[in-house]
Amino acid sequence: MSFLKCDKCGSNYSLEEDLMLCRNCNYPLMIQYDLDRIHEDFDFKRLSGRVRSIWRYFEFLPRIEDKFIVSLMEGLTPILDSNRIIDLFGLRGLKFKLEYLNPTGSLKDRGSTLLISWVNKLGVKSIADDSSGNAGISLSAYSAKAGINCTIYVPEHTPIDKIIQAISYGAKVVRVSGGRTETSKEIMSLWKMGKLYYASHNMSPFFLDGFKTFAYEVIEQLNGDLPDHIIFPTGGGSLFLGAYRGFMEAKAIGWINDIPKLHIVQPEACNPIVKAFERRLSYVEPIVEGETIAGGLRISNPPRGESILKALYDCKGFAVSVSEGEIVDGYIKLAKEGIFAEPTSATVIPALKRLLDLNVICKDEKVLLPITGFGLKDVKTAVKIFHGESQIK
Amino acid sequence: MSFLKCDKCGSNYSLEEDLMLCRNCNYPLMIQYDLDRIHEDFDFKRLSGRVRSIWRYFEFLPRIEDKFIVSLMEGLTPILDSNRIIDLFGLRGLKFKLEYLNPTGSLKDRGSTLLISWVNKLGVKSIADDSSGNAGISLSAYSAKAGINCTIYVPEHTPIDKIIQAISYGAKVVRVSGGRTETSKEIMSLWKMGKLYYASHNMSPFFLDGFKTFAYEVIEQLNGDLPDHIIFPTGGGSLFLGAYRGFMEAKAIGWINDIPKLHIVQPEACNPIVKAFERRLSYVEPIVEGETIAGGLRISNPPRGESILKALYDCKGFAVSVSEGEIVDGYIKLAKEGIFAEPTSATVIPALKRLLDLNVICKDEKVLLPITGFGLKDVKTAVKIFHGESQIK
Repeated sequence: MSFLKCDKCGSNYSLEEDLMLCRNCNYPLMIQYDLDRIHEDFDFKRLSGRVRSIWRYFEFLPRIEDKFIVSLMEGLTPILDSNRIIDLFGLRGLKFKLEYLNPTGSLKDRGSTLLISWVNKLGVKSIADDSSGNAGISLSAYSAKAGINCTIYVPEHTPIDKIIQAISYGAKVVRVSGGRTETSKEIMSLWKMGKLYYASHNMSPFFLDGFKTFAYEVIEQLNGDLPDHIIFPTGGGSLFLGAYRGFMEAKAIGWINDIPKLHIVQPEACNPIVKAFERRLSYVEPIVEGETIAGGLRISNPPRGESILKALYDCKGFAVSVSEGEIVDGYIKLAKEGIFAEPTSATVIPALKRLLDLNVICKDEKVLLPITGFGLKDVKTAVKIFHGESQIK
Repeated sequence: MSFLKCDKCGSNYSLEEDLMLCRNCNYPLMIQYDLDRIHEDFDFKRLSGRVRSIWRYFEFLPRIEDKFIVSLMEGLTPILDSNRIIDLFGLRGLKFKLEYLNPTGSLKDRGSTLLISWVNKLGVKSIADDSSGNAGISLSAYSAKAGINCTIYVPEHTPIDKIIQAISYGAKVVRVSGGRTETSKEIMSLWKMGKLYYASHNMSPFFLDGFKTFAYEVIEQLNGDLPDHIIFPTGGGSLFLGAYRGFMEAKAIGWINDIPKLHIVQPEACNPIVKAFERRLSYVEPIVEGETIAGGLRISNPPRGESILKALYDCKGFAVSVSEGEIVDGYIKLAKEGIFAEPTSATVIPALKRLLDLNVICKDEKVLLPITGFGLKDVKTAVKIFHGESQIK
C-alpha cells in the first residue's frame, strides 16, 4: 500500500487523509510506494499496447479507478534529435524531449492529470491554486474536463495575455493586491480558514508524482539507451524531483541499472538552489528574486528545497546559474533548430555550455534536454527579441 | 515507382521533374504510388517499434533517404475521448484528434516534413511560400531544421503577432502591398520568372501527401476500430484530401475494409466548396470571401477544388457551412472540454450539430474531429471572446 511520507522528519500518513503538509514539521509530503508490489506487477514488455498517456504507467501511480481519471492524453511527448546545437557544441548525442507538446502547452499537465484525478476521486467540487503561469493554466484545463470549479489567484497586475488561456478553460481568476508573496499569503490564509481546497502545484504530493512519468517515458522511448545527463530548468522543482523519483524507482525494481546524472539550471536573478548547492548546504535559503525573462523559474523559496538538494547530491548532479543574455541566446538557438520554446525552457542551452566548460559533461556523452513550455505562451517576449532581428521589408 | 499525375487531365510526369502544376492544364499535380509494391512491403503488425513520427509510414510516402529527412517528430498526435460535448449532443462515440500538438502547434507540420525533406533531397537552398498562418510558420520551422532559407510573403497589414513565430524560426517575412490576392500574384509572378523556389502549401503534391498519414494514424491508434464519420475544417483542403487519399490507399492494400465518411465544414463567410457541393457541381467557383474568425479557412478559390469535390462525392460526405456565432459557440464548448483550439478548428462543433440535425450522422455512430490548431496561435481572439465572460475581481 502506498502512503504519505515526510521527506524531512519521516512522519507517515495514509493517502486518504489527503494531507499536503506534514502535521509535525509543515514540510510538503511525498507518496511512498510499495516497490515490491510494483516489481511484481510491472512488466515493461507489456507497455506497447497500453493507453497513450501517462496512465500507461499506472503501477507507479496512486491507485485511482478508471472512472475517476481525468486525462487530456498528456505525456508520451516526442524525443527529437538535435542537428544544429549538437554541431555547435561538438557533442556526440543531444536530444530534446518536447514537453511543450503536452495538451495545454507545458509540462505541467503531467502533474495536473494526477492531482485532478485524485480530487475527482475524493469528490471535491472546487479547487484553487496560486499561479499566473503554466500550472494555473494546466489545472484549469483538467478542472474543465472534470467539471470541477477552478479558481486561480494571481498578482494584481498579471497581464491578461498570461491568464487568458486559464480563463478560456473556464477558470475564475482572482487578482490579489500586491505581488507573488501577497498572492501566496492570501490563498494560504483562505486555505487555513477552510475556505478553499488548495490544489497547490508546488506542494501537492500528487502533482509532484505526475512528473515521475517523465523518467518512465525516457526509459521506454529510448529502449533503455539512457542519456548520461539531463538538465532541468528548476523553480519549484517538480520536474527535477519527479524525474529523480521515477528513475530511482525504475532502478529499484530492476527496469534500469543506473540513473542519468540530473542537473539543475536557474537564472542568476533567482537561483536559491544554485546558491545552496555551491555552499553544499542541505537546505535552501530564501532569496530576494530579481527580474528574469525565465518567468517560470521565479521561485525564491522552493517548498521542497531540502528534497531537491538531497536528490541532486545523490545523483551527482550540478546546479548552475545562467544570465539573462545567455537565456536569450539559448532561446534564439532553439528557434533556429525549429523549436519555439518559452524563455524558461531556453535556460538549458547555456546550462549545457556551462556544464561542458566545467567538464561535468564530456563531449562524447549523451545529453537530454526537456523543452518545458511553448514559445506561444509568451508572444510578447518573442516580439521583443525577434522583431529587432527580423527582415521585414 | 511513384510518379506525378494530373487529377484533371490525367497527364503523367516523373517525380524528378519536380513539377507542381500540370504542363498541360495547369492543375496541381498529385503523387501516384505503386499500390502493389506497398501491398507487398507494408505489414501493419510491424509498426509498433518504428520511429514515432509520420515517417513510420514510409512505404506510403515518396522514397527519400534517411539522411535527407527533415523531421521535428510530427504526427502520432493524441486521440482524446470527449466527455462533455458527447453528452451535450447525446452521441455514442466522439473523439478528438489533437493535431494542434504537432511541433509548431498545427496540422501543417505533416505537410512540411514531407515537402522540406523533398527539397532537401533536391539540394534546394531557399524556398518561398505565401501564408500568414500556420503553413508559413510550419515551413519556417522545418526550413530552420534543414538549414534552408525560407521567405514568407504576407499581406501588407498582417499583424506582427501572427508572423512572429515564423520570424523566430528565422524566416524572412516580406510584406506585399495589398491583400491576399496581391500577395499570391506577387509570389506567382516571381516564381514564373524563376526568381524563387515556390514551396506552395496549397499546390505542392508533396505537402499534400504528408496529410495521408492522418489516416494511417487513425487506423493504427484505434486498432482499426474506425469512426463512421470525420469532419474536416476545409480551406485549401490538404487535410481532407490527404486523409481521403490515405484511407483509400489503406483500403486498396487491404489494411482496412471500408473508409469513414469524410465531411467538410467551411464558414458561411467563405464557403466555395459548400456552394459547389449544394449544386452538385464537379468544380468550385471562386467566391468573394467575407471576414471570418476562422482565418485558416479564408480560401476563396481552392486550387484543388475538383479533386476535393470528387473525393467528397466518392466517400458520400457532406459539406456544410457554419455561422460566425456558431463558430464562437463551438470555440467556447471546446475550451470547456479542456481543449484550447484555434477558432478555425472550432468549426467542427457546429458542423457536427448540423450533420446530426440533417440525419447525415446518427447518434449511435462514432465521430472523430480533428483539432487542427492551438488556441495560443490567436490570443487576441481569445481575449476578445473570453475576457467579457471572465470573472476577474
